[in-house]
Amino acid sequence: MNMVYFNKNSIEKLDKIYRLNLINSCTGFKSANLLGTIDSKGNKNLAIFSSITHLGSDPALLCFILRPMTEFRNTYDNIKETGFFTVNHVNEDDIEDAHHTSAKYSKEISEFDKTNLEEEFIGGFLAPYVKSSKVKLGCKYINEYNINENGTILVIASIEELHIEDGVLKEDGWIKLDEIGTVTINGLDAYMKTEFIERFDYARPKLEGGD
Amino acid sequence: MNMVYFNKNSIEKLDKIYRLNLINSCTGFKSANLLGTIDSKGNKNLAIFSSITHLGSDPALLCFILRPMTEFRNTYDNIKETGFFTVNHVNEDDIEDAHHTSAKYSKEISEFDKTNLEEEFIGGFLAPYVKSSKVKLGCKYINEYNINENGTILVIASIEELHIEDGVLKEDGWIKLDEIGTVTINGLDAYMKTEFIERFDYARPKLEGGD
Repeated sequence: MNMVYFNKNSIEKLDKIYRLNLINSCTGFKSANLLGTIDSKGNKNLAIFSSITHLGSDPALLCFILRPMTEFRNTYDNIKETGFFTVNHVNEDDIEDAHHTSAKYSKEISEFDKTNLEEEFIGGFLAPYVKSSKVKLGCKYINEYNINENGTILVIASIEELHIEDGVLKEDGWIKLDEIGTVTINGLDAYMKTEFIERFDYARPKLEGGD
Repeated sequence: MNMVYFNKNSIEKLDKIYRLNLINSCTGFKSANLLGTIDSKGNKNLAIFSSITHLGSDPALLCFILRPMTEFRNTYDNIKETGFFTVNHVNEDDIEDAHHTSAKYSKEISEFDKTNLEEEFIGGFLAPYVKSSKVKLGCKYINEYNINENGTILVIASIEELHIEDGVLKEDGWIKLDEIGTVTINGLDAYMKTEFIERFDYARPKLEGGD
């Protein structure tokens, strides 16, 4: 096949928007989650993140990357202030509103008021969940690492609680995400739905001479 | 809707495999990439990773998480030894072989010999690419951060070169991944194809009273 080729020099010389689109889409698909936070005065915030990543299962940990001085400043400040946040899967029906949460609103304005996404407080958990979300995680801030290479921060958090729509949790603990319409992000601004292809067993080496 | 609920205590008490499936699928979709490496003696290695994440566009950086003492030890050792690796998108046609690269082979055995995936050396780049892959990144190790919370390592790498199948790169630099069959991973072992829903403009605050 014919390939388009870029090297480090040609990437650096690209127009900024072109480079943003290219580098944001070349690493593959990303998770689509809304982070819900609240400050100590009760101001709520909701923001879409595409970098939430599984870090470990025992203890149950996740991580995400954040640029502190961007439109996601409110999320970071609220997490540092209260210690808690929610992670809510984005459904196919909610993509337009979910994407709109990346607009830069001041701290006093809640994205729950500017979109059709509804806040939901569950049990005693401090931070607001997204009502329509079918997989929701209640998380606690644990630590952060400054990434010196570009001034980003890697936030580490524990999963304190987990809410999953009844019926989609399989016998072995797997959540089949295509069944509940969780979307995935391709690049900066494109949303994709998914369709199950196959699930495989734990991979073991192939032995020579049959087994 | 009715929700299934887990808290920190009930998560800790789950059967190990159940917890692995649950926590690996609750953060949403993951990228599917094959990492190609080579050691100084010429032994090649190929391994699937689901944690490759965009870190920044200028400079073009990515990161991924690795447990040093697992079946991915060879990848880590080779990267540390030679400084370079490739990241290759997994196509729908290659998922079975891609998944098989997670089997624990000894260092002298190349996953390129145990699967139908073909190695490809391009230009002077040290590490092997996957021939059938339609988006391939040549990367250089830059740094690592020890994640003290669970003994994992966050590896930071620069994108040194980029090969993209001709025709899928859009005018503004976006790579539309559903067109080339790049898959996404749901949990530990499930592969999904994707279908484009929508792409949105850069989000700006909604003004009151019209604009």
